This record gives sequence, C-alpha cells and structure tokens, in this order.
Amino acid sequence: MTLRLSRRAERLTSSLIRDILQVTQRPGVISFAGGLPADELMPSLDFEGLADDYRQYGPSEGEPALRSLIAQNLSTLGVDCNADRVLVTSGSQQGIDLVGKLFVDEGSQVLLEAPTYLATIQALGVYGAEFEGLPLSADGVDPDTLRLAIDRRRPAFVYLIPTFQNPSGYCYSDEVRRAVAQVLDETGVPLIEDDPYRDLVYQTVDRTPICAYLERAPWVYLGSFSKITAPGLRVGYLASSPELFSGLVRLKQSSDLHTNRIGQAWLTRFLSSAGFDEHMARMIRVYGERRDAMQAALLRHFEGLAEWRAPAGGLFFWLRLTRECDTLAALQAALTRDVAFMPGEPFFPARDQRYPALRLNFSHAAPENIERGIGLIAEILGEITDRGGNRTNSPSLSV
Amino acid sequence: MTLRLSRRAERLTSSLIRDILQVTQRPGVISFAGGLPADELMPSLDFEGLADDYRQYGPSEGEPALRSLIAQNLSTLGVDCNADRVLVTSGSQQGIDLVGKLFVDEGSQVLLEAPTYLATIQALGVYGAEFEGLPLSADGVDPDTLRLAIDRRRPAFVYLIPTFQNPSGYCYSDEVRRAVAQVLDETGVPLIEDDPYRDLVYQTVDRTPICAYLERAPWVYLGSFSKITAPGLRVGYLASSPELFSGLVRLKQSSDLHTNRIGQAWLTRFLSSAGFDEHMARMIRVYGERRDAMQAALLRHFEGLAEWRAPAGGLFFWLRLTRECDTLAALQAALTRDVAFMPGEPFFPARDQRYPALRLNFSHAAPENIERGIGLIAEILGEITDRGGNRTNSPSLSV
Repeated sequence: MTLRLSRRAERLTSSLIRDILQVTQRPGVISFAGGLPADELMPSLDFEGLADDYRQYGPSEGEPALRSLIAQNLSTLGVDCNADRVLVTSGSQQGIDLVGKLFVDEGSQVLLEAPTYLATIQALGVYGAEFEGLPLSADGVDPDTLRLAIDRRRPAFVYLIPTFQNPSGYCYSDEVRRAVAQVLDETGVPLIEDDPYRDLVYQTVDRTPICAYLERAPWVYLGSFSKITAPGLRVGYLASSPELFSGLVRLKQSSDLHTNRIGQAWLTRFLSSAGFDEHMARMIRVYGERRDAMQAALLRHFEGLAEWRAPAGGLFFWLRLTRECDTLAALQAALTRDVAFMPGEPFFPARDQRYPALRLNFSHAAPENIERGIGLIAEILGEITDRGGNRTNSPSLSV
Repeated sequence: MTLRLSRRAERLTSSLIRDILQVTQRPGVISFAGGLPADELMPSLDFEGLADDYRQYGPSEGEPALRSLIAQNLSTLGVDCNADRVLVTSGSQQGIDLVGKLFVDEGSQVLLEAPTYLATIQALGVYGAEFEGLPLSADGVDPDTLRLAIDRRRPAFVYLIPTFQNPSGYCYSDEVRRAVAQVLDETGVPLIEDDPYRDLVYQTVDRTPICAYLERAPWVYLGSFSKITAPGLRVGYLASSPELFSGLVRLKQSSDLHTNRIGQAWLTRFLSSAGFDEHMARMIRVYGERRDAMQAALLRHFEGLAEWRAPAGGLFFWLRLTRECDTLAALQAALTRDVAFMPGEPFFPARDQRYPALRLNFSHAAPENIERGIGLIAEILGEITDRGGNRTNSPSLSV
C-alpha cells in the first residue's frame, strides 16, 4: 500500500522565505531579507506578577482584557467592532490560515494584489485557492479592474494589504480606499484586510482601514503585534463582520484550542502602559532613520538599475529592476558575499504577472551596514545582468 | 450575492465541550467536565533570565534544545526518533489539526476508537473525514476487527489513544499493542498515536507506545505538556516517521509560522531541572489520591447505575450507564445544582455505536468536593432515568 496524503499535501511547495531566513541567521550576514523587528528595539519582556494567573486553559476567543483593547483601537480607526467580534490568534499568520479554512475549497477563486505577501499565497494555496493578481500601483489597485475581476471570477474574497503593503511598501490613497469599499459593497464580495504594518508610520499619509468604509460587504481585519513588539510571543488578532465570527472561532478552537495566555497577558499590560507610547515613538524614529539611510544608499547605488519609491511606513523598499534579471541567481551570489535580500518572484500570485524586482527590509540591519549592503547588492546585480541574467543551475537556497 | 463559505465551514458544528467549559468556569461549580490540571499543582512559571532571548521570530520546527529533550525521551520509550523529526506545536491539538491537513480530503476514511477524543472528531471532521469507530474494551481495540475495518475502508490512517485513553481511561495491554502494530505494518496504514496522558500513571501497567513496535508503517506520535505543566503555555509536539515530517513542518509554517518561544524556553529549562521530577511525583501522588476518592464515591453512589473500572492513569473515569438515559438532559439538571460532567454522546464518532455514558474528570475538583459532586450526579441520574429519560427540549448549554 502506498502512502496516500491529501490533495492539499500535494500542493505544498518549499518555502523560499523559510530557507532564506535560515541562511540569513548565519552570523555576519547583512540581511535585508526578512521582515524582522530590530532586536535592540524590541521591548523587554517582563512577566513578573502575570505568569501564574495564566497557566490554565483559556477561552478560544482570547483574553477578555486584550480583546477589549483591540476593539477600542479598531473603533478609533473607524472599524465597526466590539470586543465580542475580536479573536486573538497565534500570530496574524494564523488569521490568514483560518480565513483559508473558512472560505477556500479546491478551485475557489481569490483576488489579491500582484505582488502580495508570499505566505498568504502559500497558506491559501494549501486549501486549493486559485489566484488572480490585481496589478498594484503606488496608490493601490484600480477599482475598475477590481470590479471586472469580480465579475469574471466571482471570488470567495478579495485579500488586500492597503497600508504599507508587503512587499511594495505602497499605501492606498483615501480615494482608492473608498472606491474599493464601494465596489465590494456593491458586489457583496468579502474583504480580507491584512494590516500588520499600520503603526510603523514615518510620514503623514491616508491609512483609514478599508473595512471602516464598508457598509454591507462581509469583512475580516487581520492585525499583528509582531512588528511592533516581539514576534516570538506569537500573538495576533482578527476582527470580523458578524456573520463570519462564530465560524472563525470554531475553526480557531479546532486548530489549537486558544492562543498562549502568557503572551496575551504581557501584551495587555504593555499596551496599556505609559511605556508603550515611548516604545512606539522610539521604534518609529529609528526605523524612519533607517528608511532614510536606505533611500540615500539606493540613490547612490541603484540609479538606472531600478525604480522605487521611499515608503511612508512599514518595513520594505520594493525595487522594480529596469532590466531582466535572474534574482534567485543574484541572491545566491549575494549570499556568498554575506548579504541577503528577497527576490521578487515568489510575491507574484501568477507567473505571467511577474517582473524583475527585489524586496529590501530596512528595519533589521544596523544602520552602518545599510550603505555597505546596498552597495554590494548593486554590484552583484550589475554583474548578473551583464552576464545576461541566465540562470545557470537550479539554485539551492538551503546551503 | 450570498455569502459562500467553504464546504469545510458547512461541516462546523457547535462544540459541546467549549460551551460546557464556559459554564463550569462559574464560581462554585464542582466540575468533573474538563480535562484540566489542578490549579494548585501546576508549576510556578518563572521566566527570569529567559524571556528577552526569545522575542524574535524562531524556527518553524521549534527550539533545538526542546526538540532534543523530546527526542531523548521518545528514544527512551523505544520510539525510533531523533531531534530532526520532532516538531513543536501550539498544543497537541495543533498536531491533530496538522494531521488532518496532511491526510484528509473530503470523504477520506479514518478509523478511530469508539468512544474517542471529541475534539479529534471535530478537527478531522472539518477536513471532511468520514469515521468508522473501533469498539473499545479495557484491553484496547480488537486487532482482527482493525484488520477487517482496514480491508473494508482503506483508511487514510488509524487514530488511537492507547494509553489512559480519553474518554475511557483504558490502557491497551502489551499484547494488543504488538498485535495492532503488526496489523499496521502488514497493511502499511499510518498510525496516529495520541499520547497526552502517558506520564500521569498511578499503578504499574503496560504503556510502550505502539509507534515503538512499528517497523514499516508510517506514524505520527502526538505529545502534550498541558496535562503535566501549564496548558496556558500552548506548547505540545509531534514526532513522525521520515516520509511525513517535511509536509508537517510546511503545514505548521503556513498555519502559524512557529510556536511561541517563551513557553518553549520555559519548558526546556523546567524539564531539565531537578524540580521537574519532584513536581511529577507530587502531581501523580495527588491525582492518584483523587482517583481513589472518586472510586470510593462511585462505589458508594453508582452501584447498579453504571459499570466502570478505575483507570491506571490519566484523568478520567468512564461510566457506562446500565439504563438508557438522556445524558444531555442530565447535564442540564446537574448544572442547575452546580455540578458538571461530560455526557458520553459526543465522544462517539458514529451515532449507531453510542451507549449511555458519562466521563468524569478527577484531577481538577478539590477532594472534599468529589464525594459531594458524585453523590449529586447519582441523584440526578436516578431522577432522570426514573422520568424515562426523554429529552423534553433541545438543551441550550450556553446558559
């Protein structure tokens, strides 16, 4: 008898980001690859006086005090939400997985930005989603294109990252946010709004959640604490419109009963403390400086090699290369010189929409390494594109 | 446009255990319903000197030091395992979910014990599993019945809890363990062995994992720290045979990236400490006393009402009632008198194998409440069965 796995298991692909993150944890590597907070900026974790109260099993929905804080914050943003419709998740990645579980059958259609967060493509792909990518410009997706794609595909939902998008760093204009909400309200297609970067904002910009503009369409809003506190805690959250919530809670329960309570308790205390505002101000100041350092380095080294715009928030620069380039081969070459970036290819939900691009994270590398690392990558890209950009061998990233 | 969810979502049922656990958290309720550790026996959680090293994203497989400890322990039990095939999960519930993701398509056949862990029925049911229950006696399932069911159903896998089974408390004899392993080796059907109660042992008994006897069949071994430390940490684990491991890791990654690191770090230190052995000795002594207290109370109050055997380990008594009884109605009545138990019905994978039964947990209630609670339940069951056991209204447990 041969081993029979689910059709789901056959759709599993190796995860590029996982392999790369393993390599970049080698000491001495300047990494622009991940989306990691700077180690030196994460708040100190102090569980004194908390831990023993949270040893027992807890509620699947999450700790009431944390749910209230989250609901208050979302209400401030204009999202129609109360604590009863907040679900604490094991990182916002679990929110994406629960959405896949709730909505996606084999062959279900999903619209998302091209490019988009690669682990969403992976997580929804496991459930059998088929994707159409909506071309993304600096102001967001085009509402008319969205409407046509909805008419053509009848998607299960639309997944968007409107604020400091991953990987592009783009932030939808308010006009586009309102127009997208209108299309969704008119068609009744659910919106999944993924919003992990919202609070990392370096200049004034429109960032009202699209969920706040919805009047009729169902929605799920996915939030994260990983980018602003400590990802090792694995605590994220979602909120949803009423008709979706009980299904999400039940799926959460069958997935892992509930999210670890110690992390939730620490977050509840930290988010309510005076130290939180100070922490955010410091993180935003330092990341803003690093963004500026990377912008300066890019202007020095990438003139003519790529087009980009400095992001108003978030963690990433997205470089659209001006010439064809095998970015996976470039990454291999870069790793031999102890510098890492993310090739653009895996961020595209469909092969035919790909263009040569890089994603560069600016939050994790020490400032003095940004100039040197960017210079090195420019040099390597120059060499690769001069060679014609042909991929020589199938690259093995797990070296 | 109407909301279209996945076929998976349509299979979601309300979770009885979840509703009951909510009710039993009311102060003053004597609860034999859950599978909760005693609050006063859980170790104190001290994160001093650990927390800040585990703030960043971590490996999907889990912390290397914890994986090593787990692999050492499994090797001691005879399971062919090394640290490279240990995956730390967000509670062992996540292990069950990952198994469902890896193996189950709509209509996939799964063999499991009747009765069995109800959240397994729920978690695998979400993926579309169809179940056949193997009748369970005090020595385990019958190997010949297993072989016939395999021939008839060609199952994706067999899921068993051979040691201090939930809900029955039964522990397979060594003879049955070896015979089951032989059937699986001969047919090549994968074994999922769920083993959360192994270390809560009150008398000498055979408990070699069936996985340790397998020579050819694929296997996944699911382990928990929740029953022996603090479930609020949400740290469990699985180990598997080589051909299944990489798929499980990738599914783990797309589910929640990795398990919270603080809980893993604390467990690594605690499991290696001298305090761990003392803690286990104390927990086993106290739970053993509570088991004996419940056995004495049952002998006083349940003579003629039910058949049972005192479990050699684990957390539960399983009472097979001697007369038909609507146990859901009995639970409703019990809750009005501030005592709770688990009705047997939801533990049966198929309706036609049901018999009237109760599951009674003995680890959580204070000893002085065991006698009183058992007396109350016997009284209520007497009243209900005298009334003929007809269900009057659809019971709403979420009161």
